[in-house]
Amino acid sequence: MAINFITAGESHGRSLVGIIENIPAGLTVDAERINAELKRRMLGLGRGARMQIEDDRVEILSGVRARKSTGSPIALAVNNADHQNWINAVSWDGDANNRPLTAARPGHADLCGAIKFGFTDARNVSERASARNTAMTVALGAVAKAYFETLGIGISSHTVAIGIVKASPVKHTESVNELADADKVRCLDRSASAKMVDEIRLAALSGDTLGGVSEIIVTGVKSGIGSFTSVYKRLDGIIMAAVGSVPSVKAVEIGDGIECAKLYGSAVHDEMFPDGEGRIKRNTNRAGGLEGGMTNGEPIVVRAYFKPIPTLKNGLDSVDIKTGKAVKAADERADVCIVPSGGVICEAAVALALATAVSDMLGGDTMAEVAERYGKKDSAV
Amino acid sequence: MAINFITAGESHGRSLVGIIENIPAGLTVDAERINAELKRRMLGLGRGARMQIEDDRVEILSGVRARKSTGSPIALAVNNADHQNWINAVSWDGDANNRPLTAARPGHADLCGAIKFGFTDARNVSERASARNTAMTVALGAVAKAYFETLGIGISSHTVAIGIVKASPVKHTESVNELADADKVRCLDRSASAKMVDEIRLAALSGDTLGGVSEIIVTGVKSGIGSFTSVYKRLDGIIMAAVGSVPSVKAVEIGDGIECAKLYGSAVHDEMFPDGEGRIKRNTNRAGGLEGGMTNGEPIVVRAYFKPIPTLKNGLDSVDIKTGKAVKAADERADVCIVPSGGVICEAAVALALATAVSDMLGGDTMAEVAERYGKKDSAV
Amino acid sequence: MAINFITAGESHGRSLVGIIENIPAGLTVDAERINAELKRRMLGLGRGARMQIEDDRVEILSGVRARKSTGSPIALAVNNADHQNWINAVSWDGDANNRPLTAARPGHADLCGAIKFGFTDARNVSERASARNTAMTVALGAVAKAYFETLGIGISSHTVAIGIVKASPVKHTESVNELADADKVRCLDRSASAKMVDEIRLAALSGDTLGGVSEIIVTGVKSGIGSFTSVYKRLDGIIMAAVGSVPSVKAVEIGDGIECAKLYGSAVHDEMFPDGEGRIKRNTNRAGGLEGGMTNGEPIVVRAYFKPIPTLKNGLDSVDIKTGKAVKAADERADVCIVPSGGVICEAAVALALATAVSDMLGGDTMAEVAERYGKKDSAV
Amino acid sequence: MAINFITAGESHGRSLVGIIENIPAGLTVDAERINAELKRRMLGLGRGARMQIEDDRVEILSGVRARKSTGSPIALAVNNADHQNWINAVSWDGDANNRPLTAARPGHADLCGAIKFGFTDARNVSERASARNTAMTVALGAVAKAYFETLGIGISSHTVAIGIVKASPVKHTESVNELADADKVRCLDRSASAKMVDEIRLAALSGDTLGGVSEIIVTGVKSGIGSFTSVYKRLDGIIMAAVGSVPSVKAVEIGDGIECAKLYGSAVHDEMFPDGEGRIKRNTNRAGGLEGGMTNGEPIVVRAYFKPIPTLKNGLDSVDIKTGKAVKAADERADVCIVPSGGVICEAAVALALATAVSDMLGGDTMAEVAERYGKKDSAV
Repeated sequence: MAINFITAGESHGRSLVGIIENIPAGLTVDAERINAELKRRMLGLGRGARMQIEDDRVEILSGVRARKSTGSPIALAVNNADHQNWINAVSWDGDANNRPLTAARPGHADLCGAIKFGFTDARNVSERASARNTAMTVALGAVAKAYFETLGIGISSHTVAIGIVKASPVKHTESVNELADADKVRCLDRSASAKMVDEIRLAALSGDTLGGVSEIIVTGVKSGIGSFTSVYKRLDGIIMAAVGSVPSVKAVEIGDGIECAKLYGSAVHDEMFPDGEGRIKRNTNRAGGLEGGMTNGEPIVVRAYFKPIPTLKNGLDSVDIKTGKAVKAADERADVCIVPSGGVICEAAVALALATAVSDMLGGDTMAEVAERYGKKDSAV
Repeated sequence: MAINFITAGESHGRSLVGIIENIPAGLTVDAERINAELKRRMLGLGRGARMQIEDDRVEILSGVRARKSTGSPIALAVNNADHQNWINAVSWDGDANNRPLTAARPGHADLCGAIKFGFTDARNVSERASARNTAMTVALGAVAKAYFETLGIGISSHTVAIGIVKASPVKHTESVNELADADKVRCLDRSASAKMVDEIRLAALSGDTLGGVSEIIVTGVKSGIGSFTSVYKRLDGIIMAAVGSVPSVKAVEIGDGIECAKLYGSAVHDEMFPDGEGRIKRNTNRAGGLEGGMTNGEPIVVRAYFKPIPTLKNGLDSVDIKTGKAVKAADERADVCIVPSGGVICEAAVALALATAVSDMLGGDTMAEVAERYGKKDSAV
Repeated sequence: MAINFITAGESHGRSLVGIIENIPAGLTVDAERINAELKRRMLGLGRGARMQIEDDRVEILSGVRARKSTGSPIALAVNNADHQNWINAVSWDGDANNRPLTAARPGHADLCGAIKFGFTDARNVSERASARNTAMTVALGAVAKAYFETLGIGISSHTVAIGIVKASPVKHTESVNELADADKVRCLDRSASAKMVDEIRLAALSGDTLGGVSEIIVTGVKSGIGSFTSVYKRLDGIIMAAVGSVPSVKAVEIGDGIECAKLYGSAVHDEMFPDGEGRIKRNTNRAGGLEGGMTNGEPIVVRAYFKPIPTLKNGLDSVDIKTGKAVKAADERADVCIVPSGGVICEAAVALALATAVSDMLGGDTMAEVAERYGKKDSAV
Repeated sequence: MAINFITAGESHGRSLVGIIENIPAGLTVDAERINAELKRRMLGLGRGARMQIEDDRVEILSGVRARKSTGSPIALAVNNADHQNWINAVSWDGDANNRPLTAARPGHADLCGAIKFGFTDARNVSERASARNTAMTVALGAVAKAYFETLGIGISSHTVAIGIVKASPVKHTESVNELADADKVRCLDRSASAKMVDEIRLAALSGDTLGGVSEIIVTGVKSGIGSFTSVYKRLDGIIMAAVGSVPSVKAVEIGDGIECAKLYGSAVHDEMFPDGEGRIKRNTNRAGGLEGGMTNGEPIVVRAYFKPIPTLKNGLDSVDIKTGKAVKAADERADVCIVPSGGVICEAAVALALATAVSDMLGGDTMAEVAERYGKKDSAV
């Protein structure tokens, strides 16, 4: 079976829980590595008060012994430090539903979720729809990243736009994450970064929120991951699903997809040349590393377009779910701009999706098998 | 089981074949309806010579008796009229692989597909990766559309950009397809349409190709289809996967996703107001009908960004798969611009993906059950 | 999505963990109910020392608020009390693999698991392959049982054979579990029960183990669950997979399947008669409630054939995984006969499998919808 | 993705259709090989008149070029010669449902299927539930068998009982199928075979039907296929689902599962001994080649218990679906005993199920990769 996963948990519930299956035996799974990724998820100016409360640390509940994966399902938990503060407020275990959330936030799952599940209180919805739950995606993604490290595949991200401020293009290198993580908004363009910081502060001052764009880059991939043979095996679709399912993402672009829709074919496709040593080289990567639904050996480049988060200090016009009367939308504690950490979450989403495609292709009960099999795969470049 | 499907077939093989499962009993499945959709797939200026050869007609091989679905898998076939012309050329049944394709087209599956499967001839790749195979997607999509018609859900599309020519916004109405299909490039803005036609002709003259943008609109959907409860159930991700897996699509946008990444939250989220009759109204639909990974009762609006197709009369610089020498890419017979029909294909892809989500939610062995259950679902608007 | 689940955990690891998805909102999920099932899993003479150590109690980590399911994934944990005793012995968190298991037990996963995953120590295998992990199956199954209780569907089991001692047939009633649980070996036939007890004691005395047969009965099912339309939708196959995946089960029988293979058709098929009130009655249920891969309205009757467990006090002849030398198989702490509790585990396995099929058919975001939809389904009987 | 498949078709519809996906590139797929398996499905005394009408021949519609798989989905069709005789009778394409089937056959899908799908005519049910559709399982299974032949894995079957006549045990050899196919009832024990023939003739004379038991044997399997790590990965459960979903199978046994439930552990488990050359040998295979849900290197042995088919010349007591009145069950044209060919169908079912498990473990885009990877897997024996 390909690597797959499942998550559970609520924003102020006991724990976030996740299980990832079919990780071959012999992978080093280290709690500190996972914790480091959890810390990266908290990066970025514009995060709310919750970031001060939580010092996320993973517990590895199964599937790992003496720091090595055993081939059995790996269960992870991240406890919510804030749970104790909420246990009575929200009456997790009681009989009543305290602290109802009825002033549905436009742009949030509140209203549709309540209708779907027949609630007049959207608390059950907001607890699960909360971006808090992406912590488990990041934890599981860290396991997938360790799998890829064995194969020489690296996954990183950086902020390319916040609001109307755009970063200038940067050369992709393996150290993208190192540079990005050192910046307040995870932007590689220092001058743009300063403007982004200003934008976020301005938005915060006016009780507003901001979106933007993150770019995720996968390096070290060989050709032929994914497939054109059936629609659901196309890696572009698989990646779009993964990134498009990250909360707040409303558009996903592979390579220069949006720009390319405006150009002639002769200006779009990445021409190929013999490199003189029996391989193929290209001078461009407008395709973002994917052709015909497969990797082509160039870095995979994906852009995630985030809307501003829907919880505003200055509540928007809304309707109370219970009474049907006009109200201002609820002001739950929230961030101003999640784009910097959004990239980190998308890295995890891409890692998990790519792990499915790669493990599909390679199979493998042990990491030694996986590494040997991947080593033998050919690549154009 | 939710509605699901599988396709098979090659561009010049005997037949395209598809099976769609878990269509409830009692749905009217009419070959003429399916054929009408197959005809729509051929629409649009910029299509190549193949369109003159094929007069696609579906054969319903199973799952339908006396025009009604029986609850059993529905198998469809579309024969390739061009097969006879190719049978020896490509030696489908022979022992040799005639007519090898070695001058890999940049932007196409040729090179990576050949590497993946160990071919020195990309013919096996190009035959399956061909857009010809979307005919089966459209045929199966027509069955999904019939399912939705029963529920009052309509799916349509129109061209919003070809190359640098953009259409002005249009009001979404149920008759989008009727208007679009009557236009040469399936564009609702007549003046933009004329410019698009010029652009395509210009590209054709210079042996080049053109991409563009299609908008797909789903009307009549109630709230709560899809879910925030697990990442893979989010309808935005599901739709992005489906549309992003249509050949040539390199970006997918829900609602005004790209624009919204630049704006403040207060300018993005669709505020809600009591409509005075116990329901909720909104004056905007920037979310494209999806909030928290679920439908919110507004029309679903999705935009597909198509790259120009990679087969150019003036072959791009490339490398021969077999010899490794520099060559001009192969000029297989192809279209100049597939955006007009691309919208039709995306309609089918969305229909099939949405059918999975809706059948998941409703279950149902018979269409009568499905219709009754959907009728009872609540909606915000 | 249909109800589905995933489990993780090791026999002496921190916790057993499970996640069950797509339970509709509004189901009462009560820890005490789950604990009661966990207690039933410990029933039966012939259980080993572990039963004295563990007082299994479930922790509900997510998906439930104020005792009602929220529609989100439900995560459960059962902690291993014995973990602390083993944490150093097995070095879960250390760097070395202490207490290696190399004397592979014939009939156990030890040898093949070690070969599969490249281990020279089968500890990682025995920890996951341990029947201890069925505690999580039982916990998740208790949630599925609660779902079915809402629909008037009951699932029970009793012991029909231990070793060569067979119980006489009993009339199936709703109180099977009550009667069975009150018996030392969960057998309804008191005189057979006494002999079974003797058999188990005898086996224990000689350091041996015993298998037997459990019968699982599902009452209150309407017609038409499962389907003949695709092989993987046949409920008989689905149930056989579920029961056949319970450790130690080596054969699964639906109704009187084994006997029926010997008889003429006229003596096998359950004839149908009008009951005078517009329904159909049958005087026999040799089909075990399943015809054409579907329920037919009669109770589902399944028999699970358990081999004796493979850990014997008097170790069998074996080979050391590491040295390749002849050894006596390891004597890990274990039970003598698990048939009485095996039935309880099979109940859970059947509940989970049936929940998939039923939720497939009914869909439903809320339990109210599910109950209404099931209420409208027709039944032959 | 692991190898998977889907089928469609009706007993008297145009064609049976199947698609098998994820067959690696480079497998020889030969129509004559598939036809030979289709012919084997018709073997055996006791088959009905349909066998004279149909001379099943497969059409390969896609996924194969110049006799080699291309890596794309392989679509197969088997046309129903009898379709033309039925096209008006059953009005496939017309508006009316002629030739209704209302006298539901006990033991058949007729009644429950009609209730499920809301039909008052079970024709739609009987057409799909017909054993005729196993022809496509056999055709797809032949592709899976070709995949296994590359790996040195062989799948065969023979009849071990018909009615009360049991065959004496035979030594399993690679030539089981050759011997079995040469026998009238596919039985290796000549003297039992003669009695089985008598039994079938007797049943035919009295308008009755007969069941029996088939044994399926898989040779050449290495250790570690399947897994104990998650319930749905256990190969015993996977095989039971596959075999248990073959029409008429009501019990499935792995190895000596039923007998073993009666014995002491010391008499059940297959002891292991060093073979003196660094491998392990066993003198018994009571486990049927599966331990801990995995192959152990010994032949996989599975027994399928078939009930007598439910269509009897002397119709059983039944109820008319439409009128609710007592009737004799319909006498559709049918066989007397399908056990001999049932084994052939089970071979295909096992081949397809095992292909999923093996391709899972090995991955592989090409058969060369698959063969190399399998060659490196270790085995106990």
